[in-house]
Amino acid sequence: MAEWKNLDTLKAYKTLEASGHRVDLKKVMTGERVKKYSVPMACGLAYNFASKQVDDEVLGMLTELAKESDLTGKFEELYNGAMINTGEKRLVLHHLTRGQLGKDVIADGVNKREFYKGEQAKIAEFAKNVHEGKITNADGEKFTTVVQIGIGGSDLGPRAIYIALENWARTNGCLLMDAKFISNVDPDDAVSVLKSIDVAHSLFILVSKSGTTLETLTNEAFVKNALKEAGLDPSKHMLAVTSETSPLAKSSDYLAAFFMDDHIGGRYSSSSAVGGAVLSLAFGPEIFERFLAGAAEADKLAAIDDPMQNAAMLDALIGLYERNILGYEATAVLPYAQALARFPAHLQQADMESNGKSVNRFGEPVDYKTGPVIFGEPGTNGQHSFYQLLHQGKSIVPLQFIGFKESQFGVDVDIQGSTSQKKLCANVVAQIVAFACGKEDENLNKNFDGGRPSSIIVGDQLTPESLGALLAHFENKIMFQGFLWNLNSFDQEGVQLGKVLAKRVLAHETEGTLAEYAALFEI
Amino acid sequence: MAEWKNLDTLKAYKTLEASGHRVDLKKVMTGERVKKYSVPMACGLAYNFASKQVDDEVLGMLTELAKESDLTGKFEELYNGAMINTGEKRLVLHHLTRGQLGKDVIADGVNKREFYKGEQAKIAEFAKNVHEGKITNADGEKFTTVVQIGIGGSDLGPRAIYIALENWARTNGCLLMDAKFISNVDPDDAVSVLKSIDVAHSLFILVSKSGTTLETLTNEAFVKNALKEAGLDPSKHMLAVTSETSPLAKSSDYLAAFFMDDHIGGRYSSSSAVGGAVLSLAFGPEIFERFLAGAAEADKLAAIDDPMQNAAMLDALIGLYERNILGYEATAVLPYAQALARFPAHLQQADMESNGKSVNRFGEPVDYKTGPVIFGEPGTNGQHSFYQLLHQGKSIVPLQFIGFKESQFGVDVDIQGSTSQKKLCANVVAQIVAFACGKEDENLNKNFDGGRPSSIIVGDQLTPESLGALLAHFENKIMFQGFLWNLNSFDQEGVQLGKVLAKRVLAHETEGTLAEYAALFEI
Repeated sequence: MAEWKNLDTLKAYKTLEASGHRVDLKKVMTGERVKKYSVPMACGLAYNFASKQVDDEVLGMLTELAKESDLTGKFEELYNGAMINTGEKRLVLHHLTRGQLGKDVIADGVNKREFYKGEQAKIAEFAKNVHEGKITNADGEKFTTVVQIGIGGSDLGPRAIYIALENWARTNGCLLMDAKFISNVDPDDAVSVLKSIDVAHSLFILVSKSGTTLETLTNEAFVKNALKEAGLDPSKHMLAVTSETSPLAKSSDYLAAFFMDDHIGGRYSSSSAVGGAVLSLAFGPEIFERFLAGAAEADKLAAIDDPMQNAAMLDALIGLYERNILGYEATAVLPYAQALARFPAHLQQADMESNGKSVNRFGEPVDYKTGPVIFGEPGTNGQHSFYQLLHQGKSIVPLQFIGFKESQFGVDVDIQGSTSQKKLCANVVAQIVAFACGKEDENLNKNFDGGRPSSIIVGDQLTPESLGALLAHFENKIMFQGFLWNLNSFDQEGVQLGKVLAKRVLAHETEGTLAEYAALFEI
Repeated sequence: MAEWKNLDTLKAYKTLEASGHRVDLKKVMTGERVKKYSVPMACGLAYNFASKQVDDEVLGMLTELAKESDLTGKFEELYNGAMINTGEKRLVLHHLTRGQLGKDVIADGVNKREFYKGEQAKIAEFAKNVHEGKITNADGEKFTTVVQIGIGGSDLGPRAIYIALENWARTNGCLLMDAKFISNVDPDDAVSVLKSIDVAHSLFILVSKSGTTLETLTNEAFVKNALKEAGLDPSKHMLAVTSETSPLAKSSDYLAAFFMDDHIGGRYSSSSAVGGAVLSLAFGPEIFERFLAGAAEADKLAAIDDPMQNAAMLDALIGLYERNILGYEATAVLPYAQALARFPAHLQQADMESNGKSVNRFGEPVDYKTGPVIFGEPGTNGQHSFYQLLHQGKSIVPLQFIGFKESQFGVDVDIQGSTSQKKLCANVVAQIVAFACGKEDENLNKNFDGGRPSSIIVGDQLTPESLGALLAHFENKIMFQGFLWNLNSFDQEGVQLGKVLAKRVLAHETEGTLAEYAALFEI
């Protein structure tokens, strides 16, 4: 059994803390270093950390920390079915949705890998029937659009993945249905999406593990109203993705129900039926299988007991070093791929909801910093926006770049001797070096201090496989950081109080502060 | 003449720094405070700061700081045409695009208010002619779509405003043309937008002040190719928004050219022709005028020499207090309105590019923190995502909520006794109180410390006027903070080095670090 200890009780962490050794990027940057400081990832991706403030000495200390913290042992326990989510007394099984890393996990009386595979097989068959016109609307016409109704984990991941692969699918002839997403309780969200589609040819997927998520149930009502107003039977247009014990599970309100379970956290549910249904309908189940295969390949690498061969573990360790030893407060995720426009928003959830905590697994306060603020936008757009602060601001923000050699459409123009794709790649390369090395100028307003750390994940092209690998990389990075910080990364008690107070406001059970704030909105 | 001094030389700042007085939100929160700590804004908006860590004593010190820093005097100099952007030797005239606050400003030999009004009048006439079918495509058919090609300041603001008003315009019968935006040098961005529209019925607006922005010129090439491939004459489908001295200004490649000038910074250009052209085409020039009127009303309030009546100034002072005295590193912008989905991204640019700096107006390093990291997503979505960290994380992140009593469509459903709009408002109210007051629990994993500061801007509905007022509020807040920090908020030298290095990569003028990074992308 792995031992769960606070970070600041570990000998290797004390060594790190005591070490005054610091790496001055401007002094160490060389071409050799760029070649050397790279770890292969799944699906042809590579994690290059040459512009991070580490060297062999720091890496040695971080490797010791990984060992003492028994990261590999903890991951093994997790994928073999230990109750890692202690607060909610649940297993953490999202890896099983895409592969079998260890032993069979039997829970709720079933083999969980078989359960997840079985649900995906049901989804695949359903999607095939929709695509082949065997499941149609009442007039026997094909469905052309799929709309996901969900929020948080049921929205951000699947939405980010859909956007990431939409153009790739268009180019490769597998954009089989358009996908739309309704999430916010703001009524304008549902109304706006419903106005943009042809409801008669749309399938709606209601996604809620508990079947009780307020936003999702209210948005279901909008959809049902729209279907009824169009003279349609909602039960012929709606699916549910939920847990087997939820009120949605066996309801005749839905054409079909596909299941996840309590061992899949919402923010880790993209590779379960939560992502599987909408993405299989949009792109075909084969594409979703390729996405899962990429994630599974990344998971296998995450099980290697050596951070120099395990990019997720190394990324986690360097991030911890930046947060706890160097004292940085935020991390920016900067994909040089427009298709990854919403990927930072998904990682923001995955990371900040998992590790934005102040108590350890045993409910005791911790005396060290935990998860950072995560934000980001695609480059080159960000360059013309907030990069000013990243280059010359008073606070250092570590950067996580992502880039691909090839575009998704493969359509390009040659201007001033280079394609747009080459310009895009040249820009990310230039930014890394500008951040790390800076440039001296006598006019201090034009001076760049440099010494601003970044890493880059490089791939050939954003495909279902590489996207799956990318997602799993970050999921596993966050998991390892949770292990290091001794957190329960798989609950989210911090979202509860707001829900309770919102109910009180709606029930008019308010006084004092809450009543006066409610009065601002005439509630 | 106002005196420009570093923040840490001001007596009032030294008093603030020396004061050990701190406000414990949990102890001070009362209904009375919610009623009292509110400042009216333009267009029926109100800035409520009851949940900020201030009291009359802190507010008194901040008011002293505003006075000693001569914020009002500096703003007066700015709108009266002083050369505030010292680095680039330019005036700062975006307020003149929407109103006359002070004296006539004569620059480049013309009255600048008349110049901006004149350009908007030209745009209005052009837009009317398009809407009335007097300007058509070669087949005499109406244009139905307008596509903005720009990046950074030419993209984020106009895009955020379009998204903010699209549904309002649809409901009010003034969505006259669909608007799309192409920004990234990633070729997939242009190709994706071009695939989504009917180019034969589209007008394209090329927006670049200098006429040399790389991303914008490459994206123009994509558009021209697409038009030519469709057998169309690009010069009959394209407009330019640029400066009079740019290579685009008098080119026969464009149906028309509308002008801004060097005294309008990109990130402050939404109320100039940069926003005017696309928004007047999309919604009609009357709607854009209403947006300008809202901004002008907010600008007038920003000129009041008392932070307790000047919400932008007070917001700036409290933000400075949080950054420099309380030591917070980031600020989250959280609009409870799906229509403001991209408004945080625009503010991220406006704020981080303006005040993400380490040297003062005179090119001397400053010894205090300047602009924070800005990020955000709409609520309630964010609640199901990163709010976990905001509630229970190790670092405190000040919050800026925005909410409206009414939705834009006015279409709603009643579930469990309340509409979605009421639920949306109840949630933002609940969040403010949860963050400020917390809730004790013996199980520390379910404990909320509280003491997490937020403010909220409340309005009746997101309309052209209130959106204009909201935008101007934040522009003016950022300006006042730049005054306090003694920064030049209107240049962006931090974006230059990356451009230089990218050119070297594309010219293969690389060695060492840069060459090896380029090799990762096979450049």
